[in-house]
Amino acid sequence: MNYIYGINSVIEALKARGRTFAWVAVAKERHDLRLQRLVEECRKQGVAVRVESRAELDRMAGNNAHQGVVAVTSAKQYNNLEDVIAAKRGQHSLIVVLDGIEDPHNLGAILRTADACGADGVVIPERRAVGITATVTKASAGASEHLPVAKVTNIARTIEELKEKNVWTVGLDERGPKTYDAMNYNMDCAIVLGAEGKGLHDLVARKCDFLVSIPMLGKVPSLNVSVAAGVVLYEVVRQRRKKSE
Amino acid sequence: MNYIYGINSVIEALKARGRTFAWVAVAKERHDLRLQRLVEECRKQGVAVRVESRAELDRMAGNNAHQGVVAVTSAKQYNNLEDVIAAKRGQHSLIVVLDGIEDPHNLGAILRTADACGADGVVIPERRAVGITATVTKASAGASEHLPVAKVTNIARTIEELKEKNVWTVGLDERGPKTYDAMNYNMDCAIVLGAEGKGLHDLVARKCDFLVSIPMLGKVPSLNVSVAAGVVLYEVVRQRRKKSE
Repeated sequence: MNYIYGINSVIEALKARGRTFAWVAVAKERHDLRLQRLVEECRKQGVAVRVESRAELDRMAGNNAHQGVVAVTSAKQYNNLEDVIAAKRGQHSLIVVLDGIEDPHNLGAILRTADACGADGVVIPERRAVGITATVTKASAGASEHLPVAKVTNIARTIEELKEKNVWTVGLDERGPKTYDAMNYNMDCAIVLGAEGKGLHDLVARKCDFLVSIPMLGKVPSLNVSVAAGVVLYEVVRQRRKKSE
Repeated sequence: MNYIYGINSVIEALKARGRTFAWVAVAKERHDLRLQRLVEECRKQGVAVRVESRAELDRMAGNNAHQGVVAVTSAKQYNNLEDVIAAKRGQHSLIVVLDGIEDPHNLGAILRTADACGADGVVIPERRAVGITATVTKASAGASEHLPVAKVTNIARTIEELKEKNVWTVGLDERGPKTYDAMNYNMDCAIVLGAEGKGLHDLVARKCDFLVSIPMLGKVPSLNVSVAAGVVLYEVVRQRRKKSE
């Protein structure tokens, strides 16, 4: 069994119905409105609720960031790449491909942003990267529960498969000759982002249809990867909303 | 004395010359190129370097995220609001005002983004918010050492002072009637951002000249605050670069 924790994480996981819930533990000391709503949602779905001490919740979550609620659930069900491509929600595909994010807070923030900008889904590698852990779900404000997330063995191969399906692949890379806002995103596309501090693997960068960069006007050479993801993904949203006006 | 840690943090602090260095501790076990360059920079500036065990560095930094280097320095020197306004770097002012960020990783990521987008400086409140700690400096990739950061007693009063100096104040708020990209940022302006999960205080929101929002197209109601900062600040950059083409 898995633990997930935090009010938004658990509420969104209940709503998404992607996991089986064994039971939900809530803190003795908490009586606020959001927690009450969560307990009501559990009752509605027939999920057992147990009142536990804060110390027991700390132990279950492995930290004290649980906001008084920890759920015991099945693991996040991953999708495959075909599911993510088929999940197309708008006129054009928008897929986020992550080439090895290691920090759970960064992965969580990217999932949250991917959901917020209406992306169809996210692709992560099986190895040398963080998966959907409790910390990731919490940092994603529960977005990890709604978004299709595919785990793949090889990101370079994924880029090829996306190209075969007529999805244009746009890699974010400091070597990118174009700035990110000089691209036209009114097409089916996948945004490919590299790991913290390392960027895209050379092979992955070579396979992308386009490489774009974010102008850096100060002293630091790069942005935090979740911020960079937000900048590029919201440029896609801006262009597509403008086109449909 | 203060500690700062991490290769970028210490290198940028040395370059910025905003702190007095007592000495720099480097790990016995590390011999990579970036650390060698850091040691050379210390020698050039007459800063003592001591080789210490990894355990001692962990103790000094309070964690193990130091990448083999911890510096003992004076505290970050804060500026006042007038300094930030006077630091104007481009044709138009760009100031970032933070209404109570509590998470050091978020503050660090915002400082890093503010530097990257060429902002003149950042304003933070004295109370109920994180200051420039070692964790913030590390998360900012050293941007905290270059950027003017003003600590003020009252953010609502800061908004008034900015308005008196003809700097337009744009608050990011989910109640904002305009989307962030419908604003014209080719004017002296300050972007005002609220705390994690709470947004802008009502009084601060009321004082802003404009309130803008980021379209949320998925299930989660908001973005991580450092991602939201990146989205809005890079829209300012995009518009200003486009204008100057």
